[in-house]
Amino acid sequence: MNAIKDSVHDWVTLTPVAADLLDTPTVQRLRHIKQLSTVRLVYPSASHTRFEHSLGVYHLADEALRHLRVDGDRADHLRAAALLHDVGHGPYGHQTEEIIERRTGRHHDEIQGLIGGTEVAETLREHDLSPERVADLVRGEGELGQLISGELDVDRMDYLVRDAHHTGVPYGSIDHGRLVRSLRYRDGELVLAEGNVRTAESLLLARGLMNGIVYRHHVSRIAGSMLERAAERLLDRKNEVDIEQFARMADHDLLVALREHVPELGERIERRNLFKRALWAELADTPAHLVDISHAEERAAERDIAERAGVDETAVIVDVPRRPSMKESNARVLVGGVVQRLEEASGLVGAIRSAQRGGWRLGVFAPASERGAVGDAAVDVLGLPERVRR
Amino acid sequence: MNAIKDSVHDWVTLTPVAADLLDTPTVQRLRHIKQLSTVRLVYPSASHTRFEHSLGVYHLADEALRHLRVDGDRADHLRAAALLHDVGHGPYGHQTEEIIERRTGRHHDEIQGLIGGTEVAETLREHDLSPERVADLVRGEGELGQLISGELDVDRMDYLVRDAHHTGVPYGSIDHGRLVRSLRYRDGELVLAEGNVRTAESLLLARGLMNGIVYRHHVSRIAGSMLERAAERLLDRKNEVDIEQFARMADHDLLVALREHVPELGERIERRNLFKRALWAELADTPAHLVDISHAEERAAERDIAERAGVDETAVIVDVPRRPSMKESNARVLVGGVVQRLEEASGLVGAIRSAQRGGWRLGVFAPASERGAVGDAAVDVLGLPERVRR
Amino acid sequence: MNAIKDSVHDWVTLTPVAADLLDTPTVQRLRHIKQLSTVRLVYPSASHTRFEHSLGVYHLADEALRHLRVDGDRADHLRAAALLHDVGHGPYGHQTEEIIERRTGRHHDEIQGLIGGTEVAETLREHDLSPERVADLVRGEGELGQLISGELDVDRMDYLVRDAHHTGVPYGSIDHGRLVRSLRYRDGELVLAEGNVRTAESLLLARGLMNGIVYRHHVSRIAGSMLERAAERLLDRKNEVDIEQFARMADHDLLVALREHVPELGERIERRNLFKRALWAELADTPAHLVDISHAEERAAERDIAERAGVDETAVIVDVPRRPSMKESNARVLVGGVVQRLEEASGLVGAIRSAQRGGWRLGVFAPASERGAVGDAAVDVLGLPERVRR
Amino acid sequence: MNAIKDSVHDWVTLTPVAADLLDTPTVQRLRHIKQLSTVRLVYPSASHTRFEHSLGVYHLADEALRHLRVDGDRADHLRAAALLHDVGHGPYGHQTEEIIERRTGRHHDEIQGLIGGTEVAETLREHDLSPERVADLVRGEGELGQLISGELDVDRMDYLVRDAHHTGVPYGSIDHGRLVRSLRYRDGELVLAEGNVRTAESLLLARGLMNGIVYRHHVSRIAGSMLERAAERLLDRKNEVDIEQFARMADHDLLVALREHVPELGERIERRNLFKRALWAELADTPAHLVDISHAEERAAERDIAERAGVDETAVIVDVPRRPSMKESNARVLVGGVVQRLEEASGLVGAIRSAQRGGWRLGVFAPASERGAVGDAAVDVLGLPERVRR
Repeated sequence: MNAIKDSVHDWVTLTPVAADLLDTPTVQRLRHIKQLSTVRLVYPSASHTRFEHSLGVYHLADEALRHLRVDGDRADHLRAAALLHDVGHGPYGHQTEEIIERRTGRHHDEIQGLIGGTEVAETLREHDLSPERVADLVRGEGELGQLISGELDVDRMDYLVRDAHHTGVPYGSIDHGRLVRSLRYRDGELVLAEGNVRTAESLLLARGLMNGIVYRHHVSRIAGSMLERAAERLLDRKNEVDIEQFARMADHDLLVALREHVPELGERIERRNLFKRALWAELADTPAHLVDISHAEERAAERDIAERAGVDETAVIVDVPRRPSMKESNARVLVGGVVQRLEEASGLVGAIRSAQRGGWRLGVFAPASERGAVGDAAVDVLGLPERVRR
Repeated sequence: MNAIKDSVHDWVTLTPVAADLLDTPTVQRLRHIKQLSTVRLVYPSASHTRFEHSLGVYHLADEALRHLRVDGDRADHLRAAALLHDVGHGPYGHQTEEIIERRTGRHHDEIQGLIGGTEVAETLREHDLSPERVADLVRGEGELGQLISGELDVDRMDYLVRDAHHTGVPYGSIDHGRLVRSLRYRDGELVLAEGNVRTAESLLLARGLMNGIVYRHHVSRIAGSMLERAAERLLDRKNEVDIEQFARMADHDLLVALREHVPELGERIERRNLFKRALWAELADTPAHLVDISHAEERAAERDIAERAGVDETAVIVDVPRRPSMKESNARVLVGGVVQRLEEASGLVGAIRSAQRGGWRLGVFAPASERGAVGDAAVDVLGLPERVRR
Repeated sequence: MNAIKDSVHDWVTLTPVAADLLDTPTVQRLRHIKQLSTVRLVYPSASHTRFEHSLGVYHLADEALRHLRVDGDRADHLRAAALLHDVGHGPYGHQTEEIIERRTGRHHDEIQGLIGGTEVAETLREHDLSPERVADLVRGEGELGQLISGELDVDRMDYLVRDAHHTGVPYGSIDHGRLVRSLRYRDGELVLAEGNVRTAESLLLARGLMNGIVYRHHVSRIAGSMLERAAERLLDRKNEVDIEQFARMADHDLLVALREHVPELGERIERRNLFKRALWAELADTPAHLVDISHAEERAAERDIAERAGVDETAVIVDVPRRPSMKESNARVLVGGVVQRLEEASGLVGAIRSAQRGGWRLGVFAPASERGAVGDAAVDVLGLPERVRR
Repeated sequence: MNAIKDSVHDWVTLTPVAADLLDTPTVQRLRHIKQLSTVRLVYPSASHTRFEHSLGVYHLADEALRHLRVDGDRADHLRAAALLHDVGHGPYGHQTEEIIERRTGRHHDEIQGLIGGTEVAETLREHDLSPERVADLVRGEGELGQLISGELDVDRMDYLVRDAHHTGVPYGSIDHGRLVRSLRYRDGELVLAEGNVRTAESLLLARGLMNGIVYRHHVSRIAGSMLERAAERLLDRKNEVDIEQFARMADHDLLVALREHVPELGERIERRNLFKRALWAELADTPAHLVDISHAEERAAERDIAERAGVDETAVIVDVPRRPSMKESNARVLVGGVVQRLEEASGLVGAIRSAQRGGWRLGVFAPASERGAVGDAAVDVLGLPERVRR
């Protein structure tokens, strides 16, 4: 095998090290982790996996290296990092990353501990590559690391076009061909060549629209928060599964474990029998302390609401997203020979940021039958205006 | 919800009965059954499910009805049948259908027993539809049933274009818009209007090419036959799972069950650590009795080969596909005002049939380490020429 | 013929009146007018015509009518208007519209005089349609007229996706399926249904990006302004062609006439041997009186620059675009049951408007060999800072 | 400029010589020659040009060279040949090639005389390339020449996918990525690597279906034969245009010249006011001497038919296509280590050939009003059975 057919980038040519890495259990596991976790409950054709995404990132990294005229040992390490950049994800990807981080202190881009001592490290060494250097690149370190994790990384370019292809929502379809051709280095920083303010804006706009229409769709958020609570309950039943086992699960493992051990949520997730919105509050309606609520306080609020509503504790989910941020606003572009942050070069950044704030919502979710009682109680407990009731 | 975004047909409008049917556990289960089972081990972006395919078939059925000017009660039953046509599939779809048929005597298009007494039947009745009539249509009965299961059915039209979209292999991209516009009834038979011999040929050619390049790719066949053996062993361990439970599993249930109860194959499937071809024989090299071998004889041959090779019985898989057939060759087309079977109207049918025969292969598969021994033994046991060794 | 294959919307079904209108010379002429005039000199695959665009607008109008549940006589008139909405364009479409408007006082959407007495009016009447009502709809009058010419018109939806398809630049690929499904009427005004602020923004963003990357690309602007000057010279040579003849020309007629009668520009346009930028000034660098310069003053400035530079008058083009505007900012959206203008509902409108202003450029163009002299002279004559020289 | 956006292959990178060649009048002329001449009268979005096709062929040639590991001087010549391979076409491409060949004895792939002494030859020499070697490659000479003109040439690969993209007819969408990756040389012959019989068949099938559905659509044939007759009449009026001028015309030149000098056909072509089929005969119904009729005899038959029908000579067109042939059937594929012609390796070749024969039609065309009389007369004059009347 020296090339793989991909529905987004057509044929992806594999170097020998890439071909060997693909065969490791660590990378094969990504076949079983869907790229967009619960989004497929809204966009049914979005069943694509982190395996094909990783191939896509590898492919775009390779193209970027060619245009940047980087080859040899540095390129080999970067391509390996591209292929491995997502192996640190737990089941359902981003949906469980905070759980894993809270309980292990480890972010998903810290893969060194994970690959050390596995076939991955062995494979890399057989090809004279350093697992440590690869892990550093995955964390975005160094000049080349910015290609994997940075404001102009190829990770972002791949997921936007791939998610557009698989959801059918066109807004992620950026011109990645132009982006990889326009990458330059200035003083060790990755920037876009002259004449590409619009290109940089398109990245920002694509993510802005995909956030609103796809990634943060309320149905996907409801399912995602149900999954998160269910996973926590699974982990809290000490004998079932420990956090390291959990972190190595794939989607199907978690789905089966939840149905068996946390059926009140697990069966609902499997059957798409989801909670409904009892409350849906804009940022302007939400007191600052609520926006910045801690995980423990969030859970305490759920208990208070449940008690006041006279329902079971498991029938209330309080979902407070982080304050919106747009990493892309720090993308660097050459304008008149000078490196500018996109934020300086484009008036759109402020507007997109404000649109993201406008799209932020605090949600309280409950089974359809408890929605009324939970909504009443949540308004009281959280101190929110009546108008945020659904 | 009154429309769902699909990556193939864009927006699919739901009638009220369709919307209610989608919410039943029976249909939601299809979210967890991949359309192409093990093909994704070759084409990584082919993770699409029977849920989105069912929506697509429903959509094309609706379009066909509009062009055929069928509406009212008959159309309502047909649309429901389109949405439900695949609920009879077991885990991994076609990969387990023979197992289920052998042990239950039930084909996957016999859904009446399956939906009777469930929310599906209840939902249909609430909308004044008859579960029996719907089940009859799924079996292809009656004039309209041909739209769901026949030589010119919309099932075929959807899966060809959908599989092309998700694999990236273009050959399934037929002009379904022209096909649904060209459907006519003549004496109760579904035919294509005048001037569509080429259109009918394109269906045949698309399936011919997709068979060779996608559906019957040897890697997918190897994984599929491993899965089939593993499933049989799971069922043979009586206490684990009975056939009716099995038939209602989804992909993730089976994957977890196999890893736990049949790890020698289950872990390999999950990690894509597949058997290799020990032998790969063309039709011309295969004696007729072998081509028409029964399931029991196939298993007996495996045991004989294992014994002669001195390997464990589980290390040998004999995979003899059915003789190739092309249902499309019976598609009917109007030529000069007369209904002709495609076979009469087009010289391509014979050639495609012959190409299908040319692509037929008997395979014997074994772990890489046993490939040599198994190949030697298989040549002897099956009485095949030496040249079919790999 | 009852359906036509389109590369963007697949099959377009023709009503009998549409089929008859297509056969008139007035509509057939649109086959010979390219949708994007000189843009194809930058994006070579953008050779699509106003004929296929008109079919697309007809198709989307039909879809919008279906979702709005408008049928009968009103729908027939609207569909006819959609098909005819561009017949008032001169050769090279927008590139000559100001010339025609200055000399005839007629805007391209005033088609009544144009179709009266032709086969078009006759065809409409044969199908019991009123040419006057159709012409009114093309001008955007009445409730339904907004579908053809308004902030949410289907004209815009078609050209964005069509231009994206043919240029290969993805940013015009809006979700037109969602847009036509979300159209509603409130107090006689066309609005988008609840939950579509993002959908409306996407229209605005698509046009904003396409403006910068495609429609106003400097090479296309240079070729376009050369074409405009050449056309004026052609018309000024009274014996050659009068303005009414000119207005009825197609692209090929004009190209041949220019090569013959205005070869100094005509041959250059045909061979893409274009002028270069001598000067390229941002809005911030351009005095207000220059931004709002009249056509006559623009031509006078050209003569002054030519004189000071010591070059022929025909070697200088001053191109001052209109102040940027975004009609889409007035699109109406339902937010919490209340109709809001997009400008009120979205912070993006202001930012896009500012980005459009940021992308505005005054250009002075000249043959490569005269670029230096013309640039020097233009800085002096127009009173611009030295830094705008190229 | 170092890359051009293409709607089919995305970004096409230009080498310095390619960039310079593009700027020559000889190559710019291809912007004004449509790839599919009169096909756009059936498929309205098929307005693409030989300019973008030439860029696509250049791009695929470059990809093929990369996979074949050919570089340096040989690659430079081949890429130049790819870009120039179509400059020998007259107006409306294939539609006028026989006229030009009959009157000049020169086939469109003989470009040496054409580029000698022009900017093209000069540009090639400036980059140390030999115009003679380039011209030889365009004619398909030598190992590399087969990439431009041969059974597996990239010309074919580009036009199939490009025509599919622009017509909307999917059947040309071959997997060109796989084809260029599978090219090999064996004894100086271009072949496809092992495992690609299906890939080769797909080329054949794609062309077979596109022939029937697109390239030889009867409406396009009618328009094309009207154009051919009109061009001959134009050339026969000696003072208007000589054959060398004619051969250098672009589409718009010819369209204007025909309208002016041969209005009885020119205006009809421009307005798509086409002749109709008076007679449409299958190969089986056509005597061999008619199938192999010479050009002069064809014209004589037209006169005879016109006389017998009592209509003007210009009201009859007899259109006898060449006997069908499929160059692809000679494509070579490695099968079991041995080079086989596709014809030997695949049973489909014979069937496609027979399908092509089945699709062959002799046509007699006339204005709608004369159709009856001309049909009667043609049956008599040509000695065809009555059943071929329309």
